Amino acid sequence: MSSDRIYNFSSGPSMLPLPVLEQAAAEMLNYRGSGMSVMEMSHRGKDYLAIFEETKADLKRILQVPDTHEILFMQGGATLQFSAVPLNLIGKTGKADYAVTGNFSNLAMEEAGKYGEVNIACSSAESKHTFIPAQDSIKLSPDASYFYYCSNNTIYGTEWKYTPETGDVPLVCDMSSNILSARVDVSKYGLIYAGVQKNMAPAGMAVVIINKAMAGAELPITPKLLSYKLMIDSDSMNNTPPCYTIYMLGLVLKWLDSQGGVEGIEKIKAVKAKILYDVLDNSSMFIGCAEKASRSDMNVTFRTADEALDKKFVSEAKKAGFETLAGHRITGGMRASIYNAMPVEGVEKLAVFMREFEAANC
Amino acid sequence: MSSDRIYNFSSGPSMLPLPVLEQAAAEMLNYRGSGMSVMEMSHRGKDYLAIFEETKADLKRILQVPDTHEILFMQGGATLQFSAVPLNLIGKTGKADYAVTGNFSNLAMEEAGKYGEVNIACSSAESKHTFIPAQDSIKLSPDASYFYYCSNNTIYGTEWKYTPETGDVPLVCDMSSNILSARVDVSKYGLIYAGVQKNMAPAGMAVVIINKAMAGAELPITPKLLSYKLMIDSDSMNNTPPCYTIYMLGLVLKWLDSQGGVEGIEKIKAVKAKILYDVLDNSSMFIGCAEKASRSDMNVTFRTADEALDKKFVSEAKKAGFETLAGHRITGGMRASIYNAMPVEGVEKLAVFMREFEAANC
Repeated sequence: MSSDRIYNFSSGPSMLPLPVLEQAAAEMLNYRGSGMSVMEMSHRGKDYLAIFEETKADLKRILQVPDTHEILFMQGGATLQFSAVPLNLIGKTGKADYAVTGNFSNLAMEEAGKYGEVNIACSSAESKHTFIPAQDSIKLSPDASYFYYCSNNTIYGTEWKYTPETGDVPLVCDMSSNILSARVDVSKYGLIYAGVQKNMAPAGMAVVIINKAMAGAELPITPKLLSYKLMIDSDSMNNTPPCYTIYMLGLVLKWLDSQGGVEGIEKIKAVKAKILYDVLDNSSMFIGCAEKASRSDMNVTFRTADEALDKKFVSEAKKAGFETLAGHRITGGMRASIYNAMPVEGVEKLAVFMREFEAANC
Repeated sequence: MSSDRIYNFSSGPSMLPLPVLEQAAAEMLNYRGSGMSVMEMSHRGKDYLAIFEETKADLKRILQVPDTHEILFMQGGATLQFSAVPLNLIGKTGKADYAVTGNFSNLAMEEAGKYGEVNIACSSAESKHTFIPAQDSIKLSPDASYFYYCSNNTIYGTEWKYTPETGDVPLVCDMSSNILSARVDVSKYGLIYAGVQKNMAPAGMAVVIINKAMAGAELPITPKLLSYKLMIDSDSMNNTPPCYTIYMLGLVLKWLDSQGGVEGIEKIKAVKAKILYDVLDNSSMFIGCAEKASRSDMNVTFRTADEALDKKFVSEAKKAGFETLAGHRITGGMRASIYNAMPVEGVEKLAVFMREFEAANC
């Protein structure tokens, strides 16, 4: 870690790997002899198309995306997918099932209600989203067009540890905050999407992975650029894509390869999460917010019994070089987001700081 | 100009000012002592909010945006605005007028047809869009919710030299390819928008400037993130905005100040356009594609009488360091896009090259 960089525990946008930023800086004025910045390239020119194709191929390889599925790069982040998903998919039966396990799945469910009939298949609202419902508590609608869930709840620090079984009803999953952190069997999903600003790239894009058989049934009122069919047919280039963001994703994927791919990063992720949860489990000051069985490996949420002490912790941590540890405004408390780009040493140092803070304030 | 950089005449994405790229590279790993890249900052943190507010304030000052209007940063480029405009505005009367003067206004008109009744108020299709219709040829509908036009037609190289008079019907204008190139009386417009990838920033965003009185009448089926009302109320932060693109826009605006603002750049623009149009007007080989009175100062379209010679020109120009001079695939021929960031010397050198090419191939 360069001595003047801080450890940034932001929930997103969040840290990017240092070698990625170094390469982006080095290539800013002249990308590999092209005489141009990537930002300046025509998206239909051969220099840029080579970047685009390589990034897509790397993502397909790294996530083992089967040929039945297509990778799309779309603008508007996850929030625009809250609309795109029902606009494209709910028309099949007019109904969809939603698992409400946090703020974002709730917002997605509300948006879908504009376009069809929504059934809450399960919810953790009763406990303020401290847990992930078990398979046997999910009430499936056999005639749902799809079953929607969010695999990691950034705000509450919970994560699905299993893939829901939904029979013939296609799975749709918002993986914004844990994509590329663990292996996923993409073939099980009708659609996966992820806002890129946590594990993939700077903010301003969503990656969508869709089973091509599901495209083409959008409602007639669907804005053109939200049509998955159109995006598949135009290879995400009906209009100018967010070219530089795609380039940055490409650099992140090369870095991911250097970490052993998703398999390698999954092991590192487990090490990082264990370091922080061990602190919580052995503390008489810090309290984990999520139930143990549902704890997220990406967003570690915790608090003390005293709001003033929470504030003191966040403030002193910031002075010590640990940035953005305040919890979301909905929950208060603290949150350490430890996405792929957070180095193990950053987590180790935070653990030391937490123990020292507890000793000094008990 | 750094000796290894080329002159890039791409229609967008296109050149960015060299000092802007240099600053972005220098600040990539650690933005002004924050210990973070701008790409890594929480969009709700104070470091990023300072960038966001300054960029918005600079744009308001430079474009002299009145307090009646609000500046929004939205994703999806101009194409998503083709949908957002009618979704938000056509509901007032169910009807809208469109001036069809090129490919993009035609696409915008087709998209609006999904959401209401569209009247073609004027069209240059008869001549394959070589001219801009005069005011007295526009057939206005008094009950239109708005009148829509595209102020510069990138593909055909034509530009509106006047602001249409539409009485009480609000003006909506796509200024993607000439915003910030000349002074505009924003108060005359109900809504202005521009994809940023020509005169403003890297691709991946649209700037929208809306008279706030027009917001809040969106159709109920409007995807949440396309609601101008919601974007006004959340100051473009209902979800994570394209943070780095906004930062880059901020750097471009500071550079624009160094050029004398819009007033200064307008003079430079006129010089650049005259250099190339003088070549065309004094050539017996090159033919301007647009009618003289409608010529664009941003996109200079031309051809020879021979397609093979056109290809030879584009190919030899590329070898000489003039990139992306081929015309759009719809029109063929050549196109030199000379947006704000193209230096005068780039245009002068192209003019010399054109004269030499003509002498060598006549």
